[in-house]
Amino acid sequence: MREQLTRETTANVYLVLFSLSVLLNIFLLCQHFSFHSPSRPSSTISELSWTRRAAAEAEAVAAISCSGHGRAYVDGVLDNWRPTCECNTCYIGSDCSVLLSNCSADVDSGDPLFLEPYWMQHAAKGAVVLSGWHRMSYSTTDHFKSLELENHIRLLHAAVGNAITDGKYLVFGTGSTQLINALVYALSPENTSSPASVVATVPYYPMYKEQTELFNGRDYEWEGATAKWRNSNKTNFVEFVTSPNNPDCLLCDSVLGGSSVIYDHAYYWPHFTAIPEPADGDAMIFTVSKLSGHAGSRFGWAFIKDENVYNKVSNYLQYNSMGASRDTQSRIFNYVKVILAEIGSNADIFEFGFNKLRKRWQRLQALVNSSSRFSLQQLSPQYCTYFKKIRDPSPAYAWLKCENEEDADCAEVLMKGGIISRGGTKFGSSTQYTRLSLLKTDDNFEMLLQKFKPLVASSDENTSEISSF
Amino acid sequence: MREQLTRETTANVYLVLFSLSVLLNIFLLCQHFSFHSPSRPSSTISELSWTRRAAAEAEAVAAISCSGHGRAYVDGVLDNWRPTCECNTCYIGSDCSVLLSNCSADVDSGDPLFLEPYWMQHAAKGAVVLSGWHRMSYSTTDHFKSLELENHIRLLHAAVGNAITDGKYLVFGTGSTQLINALVYALSPENTSSPASVVATVPYYPMYKEQTELFNGRDYEWEGATAKWRNSNKTNFVEFVTSPNNPDCLLCDSVLGGSSVIYDHAYYWPHFTAIPEPADGDAMIFTVSKLSGHAGSRFGWAFIKDENVYNKVSNYLQYNSMGASRDTQSRIFNYVKVILAEIGSNADIFEFGFNKLRKRWQRLQALVNSSSRFSLQQLSPQYCTYFKKIRDPSPAYAWLKCENEEDADCAEVLMKGGIISRGGTKFGSSTQYTRLSLLKTDDNFEMLLQKFKPLVASSDENTSEISSF
Repeated sequence: MREQLTRETTANVYLVLFSLSVLLNIFLLCQHFSFHSPSRPSSTISELSWTRRAAAEAEAVAAISCSGHGRAYVDGVLDNWRPTCECNTCYIGSDCSVLLSNCSADVDSGDPLFLEPYWMQHAAKGAVVLSGWHRMSYSTTDHFKSLELENHIRLLHAAVGNAITDGKYLVFGTGSTQLINALVYALSPENTSSPASVVATVPYYPMYKEQTELFNGRDYEWEGATAKWRNSNKTNFVEFVTSPNNPDCLLCDSVLGGSSVIYDHAYYWPHFTAIPEPADGDAMIFTVSKLSGHAGSRFGWAFIKDENVYNKVSNYLQYNSMGASRDTQSRIFNYVKVILAEIGSNADIFEFGFNKLRKRWQRLQALVNSSSRFSLQQLSPQYCTYFKKIRDPSPAYAWLKCENEEDADCAEVLMKGGIISRGGTKFGSSTQYTRLSLLKTDDNFEMLLQKFKPLVASSDENTSEISSF
Repeated sequence: MREQLTRETTANVYLVLFSLSVLLNIFLLCQHFSFHSPSRPSSTISELSWTRRAAAEAEAVAAISCSGHGRAYVDGVLDNWRPTCECNTCYIGSDCSVLLSNCSADVDSGDPLFLEPYWMQHAAKGAVVLSGWHRMSYSTTDHFKSLELENHIRLLHAAVGNAITDGKYLVFGTGSTQLINALVYALSPENTSSPASVVATVPYYPMYKEQTELFNGRDYEWEGATAKWRNSNKTNFVEFVTSPNNPDCLLCDSVLGGSSVIYDHAYYWPHFTAIPEPADGDAMIFTVSKLSGHAGSRFGWAFIKDENVYNKVSNYLQYNSMGASRDTQSRIFNYVKVILAEIGSNADIFEFGFNKLRKRWQRLQALVNSSSRFSLQQLSPQYCTYFKKIRDPSPAYAWLKCENEEDADCAEVLMKGGIISRGGTKFGSSTQYTRLSLLKTDDNFEMLLQKFKPLVASSDENTSEISSF
């Protein structure tokens, strides 16, 4: 009887175990099939097919370690079929881990890499996937322009409050660089014996002069600084007004007050300046390089009030390049959408950019002010309609002046101290001045401070104040 | 005893079932964990993280049905937050399913959409994924140029055998359009009282004239057709040689034999022409528009022999746009790699392009030849070093002549018959001629044949021959 009971118990135990096991199987099979089900929403990975190879490749390349001092790209130089790290200035080695000794701080160009960490921190938002058949045609939704990108650029200006765009035409350029000469061309008279005089106020962005002289059209010529023409009765000017100005970052307006003014508002974003009111010029240039930091994308835009000027600019762009890359327009469309969506959130790019540049400015300013050898442009806190408060300066550039007579060539002085800057004469100014870019990587900025310290210290023996840098 | 045996048997059956179930448990658990294992190779979907959202979005948009007469893009015009179909000419409706009645066949532009099906058929190869921080800098691996793209372009020319690139510099442009004026600028004398004369042989690509006149630099001017200068003792020419020529698709060489010749080899690929030998000009322009079909990407390149000319072109490109979009360079890098890898395979893009254009040409030619009202340029089969055989013609354009006196304006005759073509005068030729693009979508080409039939039929009553079209 006991044996019988034992057998019965054994059978029951097996039955229970079998049942549990069957339940587990049912659960696992459900899991298995739901994971492969084609009816899952489109955001799950199970559906990916033709994008998978490229997506996996992009993630694999992004995962290559460059020690925080560089990054690898899918189109990087290959070593053993693998893209190599591209290191920040002064860092070398296959993983950018080696800091070069005696390396100069390169703060020459306006390379906007201060925004690179923003896009690394928001990787999913920044990813862009293009199909092989994406926009192969010359035509897009509005001739050479993406209509949705146009709409979103207008929405962004309205949300930031930095430009009035209603009643103005919009053109896209291969960088704002292309739009500079396009506007000079469009604002110059045609077939004239008196070409337009292209001018700007010192210190000015060198591109205006260099480009105007290089393209050397019959209908315009570079005529230098506005100061020279302030009291002349000459007309027929095309005046560049850069606001905030490059290099000194001050808000500016027209000096000659003529009708043909090109407002270059590349830096009129809350990263770089307070926004006291929306800009409303008849011809206003902007660029994505200084908005999202994508200088390599070569994408800029201009708002144009006058229909004839707009038609001439459009014509110029058609014959110069048949518009800006549609691949880039698609990529920038994504970034404008992200920037718009994140306004006021924890991922607000303007908040990110402002905080980074303000801190850099404060640290550089403290260092410069610790001696009398150098001085910086005067910038004051100002009310910003975007942040809805009085905000500290956060300029893109330091416009440095060497105050001592023996330091006649300021860029040369810095160069000897291991700092590559952009000398004042390029901006139509004197050698007493030089421009330091505050826009580059953290590595660049830290190296600038490191090299600057002894220059300040050697000027007077007041080293105690700067030991905290 | 029998009961005891039954119980024993029951227990054994349960044991067997339990064991089997456990084995299935183990198998399913292994499956489950291996599927989620991070050690699987990088090509599986399980590892995707930050690219997933964008990849899923791209696939969802690609899956929008446009009835084979259109396609939706990720940056398309939104309707209810969903990109809308962009339909081929003559098709309308939210899914492009409605054929417009009385719609003209638009064969005006050289939009290379004949290659769109190639990239749709090879979707995985064509996908490109860019991170948010991809190449934000102005600088890339070779100043404004991607070094790996340069290397692969050189490899492609070597593999196709259409150009000798050794010992020549390479520049990238925002389309070959940008390179035209860059080369005119670079080949013209500086600060001269006798500007360079820019010329081309009739019929010529209109861009040379239009662009040269629009930019109107002081150092060059448009001087029209080479025929005018053949017996002059004037020097100082910049001569455009387009080979194969646009619009008549014949292989050409310099007429004036001067030293400053710009060879435009946009169509010197096996899609469009036999490749009798590699081109070896001192200045040769190519464009991706007519290689892979990505006209919207705005990317072209030029090989330049002379270092001074190269430096001047580079300088021009720097001041015009600071190079071509790095996003686009990355995308084109992928396509050049794919094209190279598939040479000689079932997915050879040249084979695909050649077959498509040859068939189009044969069908159009049969139709035109069925009456005496029209004629086409004479093209003969020729030995091609790429295909290693004598191949039939497969031109990008038909250069159509109206043979009847009453059809004095050929483009106008076609327009009345519902065909939008590009009239001969634009090419410096007469109104007797007009250009028909054979490069566009299948829908465009079929509509061309449909509209052409009655024009041929109405000229003579010989309709029986063409009933097969």
